[in-house]
This record gives sequence, structure tokens and C-alpha cells, in this order.
Amino acid sequence: MKVAIVGASGAVGQEFLRVLADRNFPLDELVLFGSERSAGRRYMFRGMEHEVKLLCHNDDFKDVDIAFTSAGAGISKEFADDITRHGAVMIDNSSAFRMDEDVPLVVPECNAADALNRPRGIIANPNCTTIMMVVALQPLENLSHIRRIHIASYQSASGAGAAAMAELQQQYKEINDGKPVTVSKFPHQLAYNVIPQIDVFQPNGYTKEEMKMFNETRKIMHSDVKCSAMCVRVSSLRAHSESVWIETERPISVEEAQKALAVAPGVTLQDDPDNLVYPMPLETAGTDDIYVGRVRKDLADDCGLTFWLSGDQIRKGAALNAVQIAEYLIKVGNVK
Amino acid sequence: MKVAIVGASGAVGQEFLRVLADRNFPLDELVLFGSERSAGRRYMFRGMEHEVKLLCHNDDFKDVDIAFTSAGAGISKEFADDITRHGAVMIDNSSAFRMDEDVPLVVPECNAADALNRPRGIIANPNCTTIMMVVALQPLENLSHIRRIHIASYQSASGAGAAAMAELQQQYKEINDGKPVTVSKFPHQLAYNVIPQIDVFQPNGYTKEEMKMFNETRKIMHSDVKCSAMCVRVSSLRAHSESVWIETERPISVEEAQKALAVAPGVTLQDDPDNLVYPMPLETAGTDDIYVGRVRKDLADDCGLTFWLSGDQIRKGAALNAVQIAEYLIKVGNVK
Repeated sequence: MKVAIVGASGAVGQEFLRVLADRNFPLDELVLFGSERSAGRRYMFRGMEHEVKLLCHNDDFKDVDIAFTSAGAGISKEFADDITRHGAVMIDNSSAFRMDEDVPLVVPECNAADALNRPRGIIANPNCTTIMMVVALQPLENLSHIRRIHIASYQSASGAGAAAMAELQQQYKEINDGKPVTVSKFPHQLAYNVIPQIDVFQPNGYTKEEMKMFNETRKIMHSDVKCSAMCVRVSSLRAHSESVWIETERPISVEEAQKALAVAPGVTLQDDPDNLVYPMPLETAGTDDIYVGRVRKDLADDCGLTFWLSGDQIRKGAALNAVQIAEYLIKVGNVK
Repeated sequence: MKVAIVGASGAVGQEFLRVLADRNFPLDELVLFGSERSAGRRYMFRGMEHEVKLLCHNDDFKDVDIAFTSAGAGISKEFADDITRHGAVMIDNSSAFRMDEDVPLVVPECNAADALNRPRGIIANPNCTTIMMVVALQPLENLSHIRRIHIASYQSASGAGAAAMAELQQQYKEINDGKPVTVSKFPHQLAYNVIPQIDVFQPNGYTKEEMKMFNETRKIMHSDVKCSAMCVRVSSLRAHSESVWIETERPISVEEAQKALAVAPGVTLQDDPDNLVYPMPLETAGTDDIYVGRVRKDLADDCGLTFWLSGDQIRKGAALNAVQIAEYLIKVGNVK
């Protein structure tokens, strides 16, 4: 089993190294690829140094079985043919192919088997905010069909990359030191602020990030659900949080929902408000599950339920989900 | 016109001094009251020093026309009789009397005239998060009755008081300096975090803050609207933000809503996403209006509309709203 990571120096690329090691992923050889800026850097994996190779249009992917790509939609589009033409499975973290009909969009807790039907050899990893939400929605959908979703996000700096996380920390340091604040990775200062914009605006007034939640949720869950999202950047570092309202076909009780969430794969129910226990990004950072709490009835909708979730954006929101897709393919003997 | 401020040393008390000065409030004499901890402190107002007097059960309010009280619900209840028995109008910023039937709950942009009917001499100032929302809802309610509200808040440290604001800044400093983080004013560390709890939990799983939004909105707007709120603390300093979805009886178009918001009292429409213009707490802090942006259709509800707002929690969310109530009483000649 030969595995490649494309975009090895990025926040998600680095997380791939940790996740593959942590999970004892059954690989025999690992190759790292990156841009000119990153080529030549060396990273440790299982006690051995691995040097980042420059990503080129050549036959470097000839013997690769699985390629995890996380270097932006442009790179994924440009190199998809080089990566897949010898038979490698490309598990792509970018938005390049997510809505293409011949590319499955997979969150293993929801639709693992969709990964088996990949005419182009590409499986798309959904947007982080969507992954986190659907992991929590699936056990509730299994109880009663979800018709509508309203969701307000509290997204961490990591969603904008490793440099953005560093910029947020730098901003707080600059404020402390009475210096001018550097703003380059976000549209505005994020320190002591909240920015109601993630990604670019669409003609309907929603951002791309918000429309991903609408479209990707429907594709992953094979559902006609309608989702209105408000995506907001806050100053946490690497875990996202979401406030979610759902309307189901029949009313679901709080107890029923909690019971389903407590045993759902990939979910940890963390719902003990009397003891001030609920999910928070400071605590979910660096962990694998989606944490759900504050489950209660929607006071504005008799068929409604509302809850709060938090999870690591780089892990389950990106690298871990992609690795779980690969693990599923290996388990069912469907890599090549 | 003799005006008293009770709780003069607090974040809201200090804002009363600034707001009364900024607006040239027509007062002849100002008296400040506080606890034992605050008594004896001196504050400048219109170029003159004012010493904080200890709040006692005596006749100190005999000649007072208007008393702005902001020292917590316990103090408001304990001293309401002392303050009002000689005829002073008590405009109370605490939650002590808000839901009492014989106490009007007033946001001048919505229900100024309610302030005229105050059998106990008390007018209640609503919860900050509610004030900010109803200022933006009123012009939309005037277009078509609002039936449901879903709202997720992004509330600043100031909502927990001046010491909490200082604690948040201290936390970032401590993290910068590699020191242990002080946590005393919030249930958990707020720096680089998001805390999905404001005030204490109720048996239905909602916090008191969230239930205030349900109950106070109905009372202020004289409405049967149902509101499901999720109130969350983020690490901004003094302005709150809110993501709001409304369902109206008839569909309101985005253009219609923007037009109504643009001319609504107390509202500034700040809705130019193409130029990255939308309300943000860093910019709305220290200003008077409620800023509304990101107005768009609710993709999950044909009769739904959604928008984002931000406003200064200490100003319109507390001190300014109370002063505007007093200005209304003076304007209509209804102080004593």
C-alpha cells in the first residue's frame, strides 16, 4: 500500500501525517508532494524522514494506491489526471469536484458505500462545516426525515489555513504590545472580533461556504433537505462549533435524540448543562469525534429540535474524514 | 431635573455618564450611588467631580426625578421602594421586574408609549440581546407579522461586566506570556474559545438569557411570536452580534426588508457584501445604532428572511436605551 499526500506542508497535510500514524494506517510507503515553496522540506513519519517532492506533471503517481490531496481546488483540478490515470484513488479535500455527478461526496458515518462508485477515480471530502453537521444529523435523520435546517457557525481560524492561525495569535500579541495589527489572511481583524463572512459571496447573498452547506448536505444525505446557513469566523484556533435547528417530519423528543446521538458513530454526546458540560472548541481541538450538547426542543417549531456541536476542523473536518474513507475502501477490498 | 445613577462604577453605570453627557441630557443635578466597594469614588461629569454615595435605605431619592439603576436584580428589588416612593421614575436595567405585569418593558423604537403606564413608578430596560434584536425586528414586523424567530448570538465579554472584559484581555496576555490562564468571571476560559452558555440553565434546557429573548420579545412587541435562541459567548469585547431567521405571515422580499431597515429609527443598514461591508463588533462598539447586514431569503422557508446584526451591548443594549426612555418621558411631559 503506497500512499501519497499532496499539500503535505499545509495545516491539513500535516494533520494527515498525524492521523495516519495515530491510526496505524496500513501503508508500506508514504510519498509527500508539495509546491515549490514546500518541496525539499522534511517531515518525520513513523521514525523516518520523508522529503517533500515537487508536484509535477509526470508519472510520480504510477504505483500510488491512495492519494490524499489538500492543496486547493486549482491544484486538484490541474493534477487530477496525473494522480488518477494509473489507478490511484484520489481522495480530494478541495471543493473542486464535490458537486460533480460522477464524483461521490462521502462522510463514512452517512454514505460510506457511495465511495465504491467513482468513475473518475476521485472521491471528494466535503467541506468541514458540512462534515461536522451531517455526522450529528444522520442519527436524527434515521429517526425521522429532516425537512429544514437552520445553522449558525462559529468557525475557527484554522479553516483559513496554518498561516491564518498564526496571524490570529500574532494579532493578539500585537494588541498586547500596543502595535498595529497585521491583517492579511482574513478580510478584517479577527482578534476581539467576529467576521460574518467565510469564502466569497454569491448572487443570492449567501457565501460559497454557506451554499456548500446547502448543496453538500443534500448530496451526502441523499436528501431534499433545505438548509439556511450563516457562517461566521470567530477567534478560536482549530475547532469549529455550530448552532443547529432541525425540523423533522414527526416530532423527535429530546430523550429520543440524545439516545440516538449517544450511540451514533463518530458522535460523543456531551450534554450535561447542570454541570456546565457542553462542547467547546478549546476542548474538542485535537480530538476525533463530533461533540453534541445542549439538545432541546425548538421553541419556535413543534416538529423542531435544536442542539450545539463542536469538532476539530482539521481532523474530522478534513484529514480524519479522508483517512476514514480510505480505511473503508481497504476494509471492503475496494482500493484498486 | 435631578437624575440618579445607581451602580455608577459598573460598566453600564460608567456608560450612563458618557451617554448623558454626549446627548446633552437636560439635567440640573446628578447624584451617583454605589455599593460599599464603590462609595467614595469620584467621576467627572460635565467638568465637575461627582462622588459616589453609599446606597442606603433612606430618603436620598426624595428630590430625584429619574433614577437609572444598574446594580443587579437583587439591589433593584431591595431598593425599589426607597427609590420610587417619593415619585422618582426608576428605569431599571436589571431583570428584576421585566416580566411583571405592572411594569412596562420598553424599547423606544418599538413601544415607547408603554412607558407612560407604570403603576409602580418602574420602567424595565430589557435584556441587551433582546433590545438589539427587536430594534431590527420592528420595521419588519410593520411589513408583515413575524411568527417565528431562530436566533444564534455572538455575545461579547462586556455582557458579564467590566471585570469580565478585563479578564478576557488578561487571558490573552497570560497565554502570550506562557502563564496559567485566570478563569473567574466566565464558567470556562474564553480566550481562543466559544462558550455556549450565558446565565443559568432552566428545566427546558434553555438558559435564562435564551428564555429572556423568548419572553421579553413577546412583551415588548405585543406579539405571540415564538423565539428559539442559542446564546453564546465569544471573545469580542463590548458589542454583541446575532444571526437571526424570521418567518413572516406573508413573504417579505430582500429589497422590501432593506428599504424598511434603511429608514428605521435606531437602525443602520450596513449591507454591501461585495465590498466586504457588514456589521462587525469591532466596528459597532461605542456607537449608538443597531447595524444590520447580510439580509437574504431564508433558503429553508418560503416565508423566511435572515440577517445579521451587531450593536454595542453597553450602549443601546443597556445605558442608551434607558436614557432614550427618559428622553421620551421628558418629551411628552410625563416625568412626574
